[in-house]
Amino acid sequence: MISPKFLGRLGFALLLAFQPTLAARYPSFGTIQTTNSSGVLNAVINNTASSTNLLDYRVQADLANLVETLQANDTDIRVVVFSKSPLPFFDPGFPDMSFPPALLWNISQIPQATIATVEGRARGIGNEFLMSCDMRFLTTSPSVLFSQLENSFGAIPGCGGAMYLSNLIGRGCTLEYVLSSTDIDAVTAEKYGWINRAFDTSAAMKEYVHILARRIALFPLAGINGTKFGVNAVSRPSKEDIVQKAQNVISVLALPATQAYVARFFEATKIRALGSWS
Amino acid sequence: MISPKFLGRLGFALLLAFQPTLAARYPSFGTIQTTNSSGVLNAVINNTASSTNLLDYRVQADLANLVETLQANDTDIRVVVFSKSPLPFFDPGFPDMSFPPALLWNISQIPQATIATVEGRARGIGNEFLMSCDMRFLTTSPSVLFSQLENSFGAIPGCGGAMYLSNLIGRGCTLEYVLSSTDIDAVTAEKYGWINRAFDTSAAMKEYVHILARRIALFPLAGINGTKFGVNAVSRPSKEDIVQKAQNVISVLALPATQAYVARFFEATKIRALGSWS
Amino acid sequence: MISPKFLGRLGFALLLAFQPTLAARYPSFGTIQTTNSSGVLNAVINNTASSTNLLDYRVQADLANLVETLQANDTDIRVVVFSKSPLPFFDPGFPDMSFPPALLWNISQIPQATIATVEGRARGIGNEFLMSCDMRFLTTSPSVLFSQLENSFGAIPGCGGAMYLSNLIGRGCTLEYVLSSTDIDAVTAEKYGWINRAFDTSAAMKEYVHILARRIALFPLAGINGTKFGVNAVSRPSKEDIVQKAQNVISVLALPATQAYVARFFEATKIRALGSWS
Repeated sequence: MISPKFLGRLGFALLLAFQPTLAARYPSFGTIQTTNSSGVLNAVINNTASSTNLLDYRVQADLANLVETLQANDTDIRVVVFSKSPLPFFDPGFPDMSFPPALLWNISQIPQATIATVEGRARGIGNEFLMSCDMRFLTTSPSVLFSQLENSFGAIPGCGGAMYLSNLIGRGCTLEYVLSSTDIDAVTAEKYGWINRAFDTSAAMKEYVHILARRIALFPLAGINGTKFGVNAVSRPSKEDIVQKAQNVISVLALPATQAYVARFFEATKIRALGSWS
Repeated sequence: MISPKFLGRLGFALLLAFQPTLAARYPSFGTIQTTNSSGVLNAVINNTASSTNLLDYRVQADLANLVETLQANDTDIRVVVFSKSPLPFFDPGFPDMSFPPALLWNISQIPQATIATVEGRARGIGNEFLMSCDMRFLTTSPSVLFSQLENSFGAIPGCGGAMYLSNLIGRGCTLEYVLSSTDIDAVTAEKYGWINRAFDTSAAMKEYVHILARRIALFPLAGINGTKFGVNAVSRPSKEDIVQKAQNVISVLALPATQAYVARFFEATKIRALGSWS
Repeated sequence: MISPKFLGRLGFALLLAFQPTLAARYPSFGTIQTTNSSGVLNAVINNTASSTNLLDYRVQADLANLVETLQANDTDIRVVVFSKSPLPFFDPGFPDMSFPPALLWNISQIPQATIATVEGRARGIGNEFLMSCDMRFLTTSPSVLFSQLENSFGAIPGCGGAMYLSNLIGRGCTLEYVLSSTDIDAVTAEKYGWINRAFDTSAAMKEYVHILARRIALFPLAGINGTKFGVNAVSRPSKEDIVQKAQNVISVLALPATQAYVARFFEATKIRALGSWS
């Protein structure tokens, strides 16, 4: 059982005591390359051990480390921009869902603003990672597609993806897309509110996000954190809902019918795990 | 007092023991004609005793029977498509609201996906029935109109129609349409998110819904049910809210001012009950 | 500490006992000019003591008086149309947030329908006032701009503005606009659902609102009140959320970093208080 509280008291005290420089506190490590300037941290996730940049245990551990540092109310970083990130590893053969929902829950409430940019696919826990961020920006490239596809093999989005979505696009469209495990493209996703905005080119998206992130980073962290706290209180599924959901996933995955579907899914797609963001 | 629990333990045990064939379990009966194939049940409601296909006590009883069978977690049916259905009988002269809200509440949480198709009007409890389904598809025919019109005679939507709506189109537009009892057409309803999608022709709508229903029906029921459970937890009014609402309706209907409006409404419209879907 | 219960028992009893004429019950007074006809009260707020029509203590006290009369379930008034209104005074130098959130909370639940029309800017508590109304109509004039700008000086919207907004435009767009303190124009605000509708001319807006208000005013107050009760139950932040938010604002405003930002903000804008609606 992994505790959702990533930062122990000792670690917190040490951090305050020493406050190393920004570059030292946010080094590139493992699967995550970081750069930062003017209060904006850019985190590019690149899992070279996976041909599809999957969020396997390596990325998962690296992301948890990054979140731990950000949770310490570090006022030097006010915005985090994630890009090309794979997503929390989801292994139906080892259905301990405690860690992925806890990781995404923690991402949703780090004190910094979080922005995700996407130029490829985000399915399954890939989309759930996007949901846990504050904002989502895409390009209209035909390769940009999203879905919660768990239903297609008899499972359930386990980190609250469909619940977040019902705040963004309403109960009716959420059930249409999630129950049918249908992909949505960037233009339709923008029209429905699934994402914030779609741009015709990668350059246009990056310029918009750069200006937006720099502007937010001008403002004090306490206000960013307090505003997120209020908006999360009314528009995010509750922790109880997420935990209940994660328990339902474990029950459903244990059903023989689901196991048979999962096996066929993996055989057909030739991948061993769900949740990619390429 | 009708219990919201439709299925007794005895009935459930019998169903599991014998499991009759699909056609025997979902016969056409009374006001409901059923057909099914590949896990999709089509339920067409046709109340020949009413010139406006009203949801009177006959349809109400038949719908409750259908829901009872579906609640038994029957895995042979994964999707239900309702069409041309009238709606729960609403008789202000006998304002026991226990049954209609309970019926619609149960429809919102049967384990199967529910899809409503509409080619006519849905007002009052008619629209509340649509809200209790998972998805709504329309044609853009000028005769397709929706409203919650209870305010126009001093009453309140009693099965949560306006509460469901505020998740779909937001608090501001909900209050505009419901407080003014204004009809909305299919194109505007799609733009606002009141419904999932509007089609230019009946054939186009039916083809889309057929493909969608067949796709969802490929997937195991446990995942469909689990996904609905999560989305309902955050986007549906709570049972307590519905019960409170139904009690408010009874109080408001008892007011002399409302009684006078209801009498005039029925005189003007020459109908005895609210809620039609023609 | 100002009690959120504006109307004492004594006052209520007196009102019922005497019921003065409408004009006497809703006189123009201080900063508020009122006219009424056919159940619609038009309230124009004009603070001649402020060059920017700010919602200072004068307007605040006058609004509280008006709300007190409306709270008495007066069935002669069924709709209130606010226009050119400044907003609850927000003075970071005197951060007792008890009164403004209580005032806006009470506005959100007076039994009458509330409609705001805007032909200028509404920022800060200005936008929060709009959120507490049932409906919002604008013109597309370039001078019509909205924002929750508190983040820009390290504070938080204290009356639930960002929380209301997340029901209307979703969590993602809410965080984008509020965290970056960016203005939104009328056309984009309509597209997102921030407001109900934008009109090309002031005359078109006024005609629409006139017809809408007159129509709603035809219906009994009990139904209007009951419908608002239900929609508020599911789409409005809870009172606990608002109180928590207001307490967070007080904590954040006390931070030296925020104080420094506020001082610079007031110096740059040459105003002493936030929240204008001109």
